[in-house]
Amino acid sequence: MERVPILKIGDILLVSIQVDMSDQTAVALQEDLAERIVATGCHGVIIDITALDIVDSFVGRMLSTIASISRVLDAETVVVGMRPAVAITLVELGLSLNGIRTALNVERGMELIAAERDHDRHDEFDDGSDVEPTASP
Amino acid sequence: MERVPILKIGDILLVSIQVDMSDQTAVALQEDLAERIVATGCHGVIIDITALDIVDSFVGRMLSTIASISRVLDAETVVVGMRPAVAITLVELGLSLNGIRTALNVERGMELIAAERDHDRHDEFDDGSDVEPTASP
Repeated sequence: MERVPILKIGDILLVSIQVDMSDQTAVALQEDLAERIVATGCHGVIIDITALDIVDSFVGRMLSTIASISRVLDAETVVVGMRPAVAITLVELGLSLNGIRTALNVERGMELIAAERDHDRHDEFDDGSDVEPTASP
Repeated sequence: MERVPILKIGDILLVSIQVDMSDQTAVALQEDLAERIVATGCHGVIIDITALDIVDSFVGRMLSTIASISRVLDAETVVVGMRPAVAITLVELGLSLNGIRTALNVERGMELIAAERDHDRHDEFDDGSDVEPTASP
């Protein structure tokens, strides 16, 4: 079975998807990524899909799942490198990448994650209270 | 034909090789990389081979060619993520990766390139002459 490599760059884990994802490969990637987030304490995950010609509902779901897993492990996920044709097809198919942030390329993805972390940190300080943040009803 | 994506991160171009390289893919990668180096003015190329189980003479030659092309375009090439088994096989096969620098992972590769650039810059200033550097006999 092929495994998608996960590269650590500073505070970010970078995944470049180049192979056709099977069920097995997708599950392995989710597991590997979760383990690496915990092991490294990284706060950002960037998934590069430059090489993908098609993002179908299977890949879309995989990306959503990865984003959700990362979120509970306190890491932001950004999908980068989407081709114009892929974006058009996604909209035509009515697929919305729920809960997934996108950026044009890896560098902008890194900026987005850095800005987001910065924002979160300021929020914590601005808050001034020591209660756990809870979702408002 | 599959194309290997090239990601730009700061002053570095990152290539993660995950697919089996054919003649065509290898040539396309060399061309794409040369174009990107010229277009971006990047001074470093990092080639990640974490996903490769085998580095045979074909892949070894491709890496050497990429390193040579990059060098004439004023960019350093570092191969990262080599698996222990791959290193052992390389030595057993008697393949030496001529002119290729290696590092353990992407981060160390980036440090190596940064240190190398720094070193080169100091050399230029220390030299103090305006003659072209020539190989000593």
